Amino acid sequence: MEKRAMLYEGKAKKLFLTDDADKYVISFKDDVSAFNGLKKGVISGKGIVNNQITNILMGVLESKGIPTHFIKELSKRETLVKKVEIFPLEILVRNVAASSLSKRLGLPEGTKMKKPVLEFCYKKDELGDPIINEWHILAMEFATKEQLDLITEYAFKINEILKEYFLSKKIKLIDLKLEFGRTSDGQVVLADEISPDTCRLWDKTTNEKLDRDRFRRDLGGVEEAYYKVYDRLLG
Amino acid sequence: MEKRAMLYEGKAKKLFLTDDADKYVISFKDDVSAFNGLKKGVISGKGIVNNQITNILMGVLESKGIPTHFIKELSKRETLVKKVEIFPLEILVRNVAASSLSKRLGLPEGTKMKKPVLEFCYKKDELGDPIINEWHILAMEFATKEQLDLITEYAFKINEILKEYFLSKKIKLIDLKLEFGRTSDGQVVLADEISPDTCRLWDKTTNEKLDRDRFRRDLGGVEEAYYKVYDRLLG
Repeated sequence: MEKRAMLYEGKAKKLFLTDDADKYVISFKDDVSAFNGLKKGVISGKGIVNNQITNILMGVLESKGIPTHFIKELSKRETLVKKVEIFPLEILVRNVAASSLSKRLGLPEGTKMKKPVLEFCYKKDELGDPIINEWHILAMEFATKEQLDLITEYAFKINEILKEYFLSKKIKLIDLKLEFGRTSDGQVVLADEISPDTCRLWDKTTNEKLDRDRFRRDLGGVEEAYYKVYDRLLG
Repeated sequence: MEKRAMLYEGKAKKLFLTDDADKYVISFKDDVSAFNGLKKGVISGKGIVNNQITNILMGVLESKGIPTHFIKELSKRETLVKKVEIFPLEILVRNVAASSLSKRLGLPEGTKMKKPVLEFCYKKDELGDPIINEWHILAMEFATKEQLDLITEYAFKINEILKEYFLSKKIKLIDLKLEFGRTSDGQVVLADEISPDTCRLWDKTTNEKLDRDRFRRDLGGVEEAYYKVYDRLLG
């Protein structure tokens, strides 16, 4: 496999073509951003940590029957994945109220939800990634009903699998953001990343934040938090 | 039936107890507001027009099998209704993009949606009536799954019935806001009002706005628009 031209550079990752039209290389950057790109920074080593955390979690999910884009880890920072067309959706699953969910429902941060709450956001920076629902998605033809039902089913399952997995590592999964894509043969698969950039992770005992909120809220100890998650997953 | 103490005064209506514990009197006010109460005014005769428009539409819906809270029109401004416990939800059904839907999806006002879009908002002035979805509703226990499915089914049916009905009156139903409640015996029924305060209504030929947007946007001819809708429903 040969890495070719860069196809796309996002806020936290670069995507490269390869000599196989059905495969891409993802390269994880140390860059970090928040508030729709308004706040920017660098977390040294984040790309390495997030690539490997993502691959560990994708492996856990594959073993439980969730199809993903993962093919092979190429290096600490780079992974070979299936080419997918990403649905223009961010799928959030929330177990505990934080951030926008706290504000939306008037709940103090840390309130445990009686049931997991799934939210769809329209991936569109210019619009601020607004929250939408299944009827917006169907009317805009962002996905078919069948694809949407599958995404929903997978998202709740992924949340259950990872909630249990993180808990075995003494971490509470507060919420997570997922993206899905369809492969060239039409299969819906989990794509993107699952990392302290895209999940809220709190220490099981102390509720210490081990995720991007440390950067968003200037809490300090950002790199240490990312490495702590990585170390626990290895342990 | 004897009208008793006022139970509640809202932005556009008052609610009175009666000597029957299962019946209320709704009295429609001429007061109008917009932007979560930030803009206020009076539309002379609006209460009379909205009461009668609502009752005509409730009658149309009842004849098509939609259960409503309507019992009897008492006067031009007042109607006897079943006592219901209102779900803390605003249910919007949108056929054409306008206002917040235009902003959310980046669509020019007037864009016809490929399918009707239903939105739930949490009725909570302090939070600005935020948009929510079925998982927020179930986690917050605002309604059961069965009640929510029924509300959703009724909302789409009501939209279809009223879209056709308004069109026969040379009016396009752009969107509408509904509220539902449960009666003392647990039945889910349509409540509140359906009027130019709660629907967007455009003239079929000219697209002239015949609803509260005339007040919101200072377009003038506000009273005339409300009376025009009323006259067309009678005609």
